[in-house]
Formats: sequence, structure tokens, C-alpha cells
Amino acid sequence: MSQSENILIIGAGLCGSLLALRMAQRGYQVTLIEKRPDLRKVEQDAGRSINLAFSDRGMKGMKLVGLEEEVKKLCIPMYGRMIHDTQGNTFLSPYSGREDEYINSISRPGLNMLLLDAAEKMAHMTLIFNHGCEHVDFENGSAIFKNYDTGEKITHSASIILGTDGAGSAVRKNMFLHKKFLFSFSQEWLTHGYKELSIPATENGGYKTDKGALHIWPRGEDMLIALPNLDGSFTVTLFLPYKNSDYCFENLTTSARITEYFQKEFPDALELMPNLIEEFFENPTGPLGTIKCSPWHSYGKTCLLGDAAHAIVPFYGQGMNASFEDVVVFDSILEKHQGNWETVFTAYEAERKKDSDAIADLAVDNFHEMKEHTANPLFQQKRKLEMAFEGEFPNEYHSKYSLVTFHEAIPYSEAMRKGRAQDKAILNLLAEKRLTDAMSLKEKLILVQQETNDILHDDDIVKNL
Amino acid sequence: MSQSENILIIGAGLCGSLLALRMAQRGYQVTLIEKRPDLRKVEQDAGRSINLAFSDRGMKGMKLVGLEEEVKKLCIPMYGRMIHDTQGNTFLSPYSGREDEYINSISRPGLNMLLLDAAEKMAHMTLIFNHGCEHVDFENGSAIFKNYDTGEKITHSASIILGTDGAGSAVRKNMFLHKKFLFSFSQEWLTHGYKELSIPATENGGYKTDKGALHIWPRGEDMLIALPNLDGSFTVTLFLPYKNSDYCFENLTTSARITEYFQKEFPDALELMPNLIEEFFENPTGPLGTIKCSPWHSYGKTCLLGDAAHAIVPFYGQGMNASFEDVVVFDSILEKHQGNWETVFTAYEAERKKDSDAIADLAVDNFHEMKEHTANPLFQQKRKLEMAFEGEFPNEYHSKYSLVTFHEAIPYSEAMRKGRAQDKAILNLLAEKRLTDAMSLKEKLILVQQETNDILHDDDIVKNL
Repeated sequence: MSQSENILIIGAGLCGSLLALRMAQRGYQVTLIEKRPDLRKVEQDAGRSINLAFSDRGMKGMKLVGLEEEVKKLCIPMYGRMIHDTQGNTFLSPYSGREDEYINSISRPGLNMLLLDAAEKMAHMTLIFNHGCEHVDFENGSAIFKNYDTGEKITHSASIILGTDGAGSAVRKNMFLHKKFLFSFSQEWLTHGYKELSIPATENGGYKTDKGALHIWPRGEDMLIALPNLDGSFTVTLFLPYKNSDYCFENLTTSARITEYFQKEFPDALELMPNLIEEFFENPTGPLGTIKCSPWHSYGKTCLLGDAAHAIVPFYGQGMNASFEDVVVFDSILEKHQGNWETVFTAYEAERKKDSDAIADLAVDNFHEMKEHTANPLFQQKRKLEMAFEGEFPNEYHSKYSLVTFHEAIPYSEAMRKGRAQDKAILNLLAEKRLTDAMSLKEKLILVQQETNDILHDDDIVKNL
Repeated sequence: MSQSENILIIGAGLCGSLLALRMAQRGYQVTLIEKRPDLRKVEQDAGRSINLAFSDRGMKGMKLVGLEEEVKKLCIPMYGRMIHDTQGNTFLSPYSGREDEYINSISRPGLNMLLLDAAEKMAHMTLIFNHGCEHVDFENGSAIFKNYDTGEKITHSASIILGTDGAGSAVRKNMFLHKKFLFSFSQEWLTHGYKELSIPATENGGYKTDKGALHIWPRGEDMLIALPNLDGSFTVTLFLPYKNSDYCFENLTTSARITEYFQKEFPDALELMPNLIEEFFENPTGPLGTIKCSPWHSYGKTCLLGDAAHAIVPFYGQGMNASFEDVVVFDSILEKHQGNWETVFTAYEAERKKDSDAIADLAVDNFHEMKEHTANPLFQQKRKLEMAFEGEFPNEYHSKYSLVTFHEAIPYSEAMRKGRAQDKAILNLLAEKRLTDAMSLKEKLILVQQETNDILHDDDIVKNL
């Protein structure tokens, strides 16, 4: 690396802030530029995902930049899914049979501030806010920004441009419009949208319901979830079809309809949500989409990371974790191929795209699992068996959820391949009643492992033809 | 239907011409508008796919409009794949073990002219050429066109707009840019491009090689194919990586390199291609892409059909067949729901999208099958066994290729599901040597059927959770 190499990072959200900090730690001259105002100086927007699930892959990123201890202070552990039925009964479905495996609720702005504060302390770091990217010149490595305060347009040139400007990435949109290389691209929308609501804290700042779980009210087509915040409140998210359903965003247009809907489907949640009607009308309805593209880089000068390269739906709680893991993978490849950016970018995409594709697909699967399957008897039997396996044989069995969430050394693509085969094996064995009461738990485990290996083996014959 | 309803069809290629003819037969006022000149009045471009594989699903479309006999005159039957190795040895791999199952080589402009001539004869039909679509107003049902002769812009309004303007559809691009509904979209490019070349006819108009087959020179990463034309020539297509390969479009830049490559890989073809060098430099290199989108329709006024809705790669020979089947499916749904276009469009997409998605995926699979697998021993054993099954038990066994190509009553999605399970069953049984010489052909068939059903059953348990 040449000390004079300057890197322009477009987008100072979670991924961009972490990446900027890491690149500065490596000694590059970094300019980090963001279209929104500095979130440390303005009040937060309501209705934009204000907490997130933070887990082991995200932690790898925080370790990389030395912020492991600081981030722990922002974390609220969640040990499982607390399922709420329509009668208000609840039961806890643990995330793992191992005690040390849990996920965390974390504040998005809190985490972003932690990273921005650390980045700002670095030498050779320039932070610019309120500048929106309007055009990227990929061949020359420069970009035009509009200063939203003055209306002025300015051009930034750099040795390297890294696009971390999120799902709506301006850098990626410019790649799409640039006709000189073949750009594969997909945007897939769910027929559901989401709306953020809240359960406020009690008067003395306590929690109105269990803070140690991710709460789910699964209702087949629609679903409510809630994650705890440090201030005692919960952020609640409603996932609901836009249209063509008895209750949908298109027809929930009056206070009476909204209340009727919550009374029928989520009566226990309704009791905890005094601001429901106000929030329902004030907060925006957001779309849920998956974005994939390729190539992520062009002319050895520009590369996309994080949601800009692969936006996913939120149902595996892995969006930010995947983006942080991007930075870890990118950093390790940079270590290997430093000095040749074209090679870095090509090797990075070759290593990483199969994994970002996998978590995108797993996240859509989990949407169906959360809203429908969590209430399905066969699915519940499977989870019960998996918890028993993980409790009794912690080193021999790992569910798909565990592989994805807690086994950060295993790539997403491998976690998906193994996890899906395992799920299929257990579901088939249960459906065919081949796991009998006469068998010991160990015997059941061995049968599941055999069946899983058979499935993987048969798939491989076709794949390796 | 009201006799006064006027339908604007944008794009007068194969799908648009067939659709216009059918809509006129139903009594609608039809305006068919095309950006290119009338192909009956201009010389054809070289280098654009001038022949196609025409099979049973395409024939359904021609039957629907009463042109079955006319189209047969344009067809040259091809009974199998003629595989050419690097030594110039050939062997025929039949498409089916049944004698009446074959595909046809047909001229794209010839077929288009047949349809345009028939459409032009209809009352209430207006054909307009040389008018490019520049903008669609989806909410009001109108579109702006540029007259390429005069430069003038004109607006056409209609009760209904049907977009059949192909893979580069302007109607679809306008849907993508229209922000008022969530439009899912994907474009996936292969890393290969294609270039059209030719084997000319002999001096007396005869064929230089067997005209009864689709010729393939499979070479792992690259592939040459040839289809016969009525005039004694063959249209030859080279599929080759753009870059990062010993021989690729990026480095085949001199006559010497091109000749060296053909001498090494396709020596027997080279002998038949006197114009190779000239054609290689003159003809464009085209990209190979898959396009999917949803919804296909908006505001009950506009709907996409054919390649505009689902462009696929050419490797199953099903592009035009799928588009013609679109028209057949659309027509049957129109018959059912006539009078309510919103219902027609919604029902059409609900019925058809799973099938256009399936043939898109099958076509990409076949790219790998053609260039790699046709030379693989396990694959060849499978095909040999399938030919034996189809010859001996013509009503009991149908390969995936047969289901897709010759069984036009079975939807593509079902052909894919069944065909993939069957392929997996046979490959696994062969790899595990469970089809022994001691078994009769009938016993082998029964085992393959059992294994196929087991695979389908296991998949269904997961799918139906």
C-alpha cells in the first residue's frame, strides 16, 4: 500500500462506518461521505428500523476494529423466540440447546454512533455529511455529490471508491445504468410491507414484557414481532400484506379497523401499545426486498459492500451481521493481495457472493418459517428434537439456525447446504414416523446424521456431474 | 367484449404478430406497432438469430390461429443432437426414443412474415412500422412513439396495451422506472456471449452435412452449434466466454487466432466454413441473458407477454415456443374472464409465471448440459438408458427433455419438477451401481420410477410444511 492512496467511501451507515474505521486503521487516507445529516447531531426519524439483531458474525467485525467491549454495553441478550398465540398464551422456543448461544437486540443509531466516534478519532479521516451521490464515473474513479446545505455540486476523485450506501445505493444504480459491462441485477419484493410501532417502557423505565426474548405473534399470513431497547421500550414491527387479504395495509385505514384487527389477532400486544393508532398513521409503511447484483466492482476502481451489494429481508436477523462479515472478509483479502485492487475486488466477490446469496435466500425462507411454520406441529416437533440434540450432544449437533447465527467460522453457503439437508432429513423422518419412542436420543441423532449425509451425497452426484 | 375495444400491441416480432392475429380473430380493434422496419420489405440483418427450434408448444400457437399447415412448410425436422468430437467423429443422441418426437429448424423471419401476412388480412387491424415506444402512461393507458422516418412524436391511446416488445422491452423498462407499484425484476447475464456464423449450401443448393440433426461441438467451456436452413445452408452459433479463458472473445482478435482456435477445437466444422473469418469480424457478439419480472401487468390496462415478460437463454430451444404458449394460455384465460381485464391479467400471471420461471431455469441448466455434460460418461449412460425406456415403454417413460419439448399438455413447471427428480434418480442409481446387468429393462424402469417417487415425496414434505 502506498500511504498516499486515498479511499472514498460513499455511505456512513453501519457498514460504511466500520469499513472506514478499518481502512483508516490500515493507514489509508479515508473520506467517508454520507447523504444524511450526522446522526449524532439530529433527532432520530421514527419508523426506520431502530433496533437490530446483533450476533456472532457482527461481533467478528467489532473485534476486527477493537470495539468488542464497547459494543457489548449496547447489547440486550435474547435467548429465543417467545411465541404468542391469539389467546395471549406464550411459550419460549430457544435459539439453541447450548447456553452460550443467544442473539442480541441492539440500537441501530447507537451502534452507528459508536463506529462514527471511533472513525472520527483516526488521523487521515475526513467525515462529510449531507452530501448525496449523484453520479459515479467508474472509469476515472470519481463521483459527483450535491451539498444539500448549499445546493452546490462537488466532485471527489480517489484511488478507490467503496460503495456502502445501502439498499437504495446510488453507486449500484449508476452501475446498472452504465452500459459498458454486463451487470446482472435483481430486486425481488415480498407482497408484504412493514410498519414500526412500539411498546413503551413502564413509568419507572422497566420492561412491560420479557426482555430476554424476541417476541413473535405468528398468524400465518401476517406477523408481529418485538425487540427490547435499553430504555425499557420495545420496537414492534408489523409485517402485513399490502393488499388482497382480509386485513392488509390497503384496508387498515381507520382507527376502528386497526383496533379491531389488533383485538382479534394480537390482544395481549394491544394492551401494551397505548400509542398504536397514532404510530400506525404516522409511521411509514416500508417495502421488503432482496437485492442481488454482479459484478460488485468495475475497472479495478470501485467496489460495493454491504446492503449496496446484497440487500436482504430482515427475517434471519442477519442483515447487519452479513455486512460486518463483508468487511472482515474484504479486510482479509486485502491483507493477501494488497497493492492490486483489481485482484482484491475479484477475489473478494469470488469468495463472498455465494455467501451473501445464501443468507438472502435463507432470510426469505425464515419469513415463511416465522409467520407460518412456528405454529406448525411438524415444525415444532423438529425444533424440540433439535433442542434435545443440542442440549445432550452440544458438539455433535448444530441446527441450521445455529450454523447460520452462532457458527461464524462456517460460511453462510455451507450453513445453508448443511442446514437445509438436516431440516429435510428430520422432517422426512418425522413424517414417516421413523424416529420411534423406542429409540434413544443418541440413536435418533445417528439416524438423522445418516439421512442428512445421504441427502447431501445424492445432491452432490447431480451437482458434480 | 365490446366490439369497440381497441388493443394496442407494442412489438411485431413473433409473439406480437401471433397475439395481434389472435386478438383480431376475436373481433378486437388491433393496432400493432413495431420499432423496426417491416421485415417483409427490407434485407435481413446478418448476425441476429435467423433460425430457431420450433416444437410442440409453438405448434399449439399456430393451431390456435389456424396456420398449422402453413408453418409445416417452413420446418426442417431435427431428430437428435449430432455430437462432434475434436477428431471429427460424430454420434447421434436422439431427442426421444419415440419416432414421432422431433424438433424443427425454422427461419425466424420466415415465421414472422407468415404471421404478419395473416394479421394484415384481418379487418380492424392496423400495422405500423418504424415507430419506437418512448414512454408508457400506465395509469391512463397510452403510449408515446417516435416515428423514425419523420422524427415526429405521436401518442396512441387504447383500452388495453399489450407489451410484446421482446427482451429489451421499452414497456417493461417503463414499468421498472414507474415508482408507484413494487416491481420485482431480474436480469442475469451468462459470462458467455454468442456469435452467428454459417455453413453455406453446396453449389447446387444441397446440405454439406446431415440436415436431420442439431449439430453440437461440445468443448466444456465453449460450444459450437449448427441448425439447417431451407436453402441448404446452416446457421452456426459459437458460444464462448467473453474473457478469462484461453480462447475467448476478448482474445480472438486476429484471423490467425480464430483459425488456430477452430483448427484445434472444431476442425471438421472449419472445413465447411469458408466465410468464417469475414463473418467473425462482421457479425456482432451478443450477450446471453435471463430476464424475469413481476407483476406483468399494471392498473388493469397494460400487460407484458413473451420475451418482454420473460427472456430466456436459447439452450432449450424454447424461447419462441414459450412465447407462443403464452398467447395460447392468455387466450384461454381471456375466454374465461372476458370483460374484466384486471381479472384476465391477474389470472394469466398466476397461471403462467411459474411456468415461464421454470423454462428460464431449465434453459440455463441446458447450457451446462450441452457444453459439458453431453461429453460426460455418466450423462451418456443416462441418456442411453432413457432412450431404451422410451423405445421399449413409450407410454411409461418420458425424459425431462421429452416432457419439456414434446408434452405440450404438461406445464413447464411440472415438467421441470418431474424431470429433475427423474434425472436425479437415474444419476444416483447409476453412480451407486444399483442398476445391474442382471436386471431386465422393465425392472430398471420400475426401480427408477420408485426412486423418482421417493425423491418427489421427500421434497413435498418440506415444501408443504
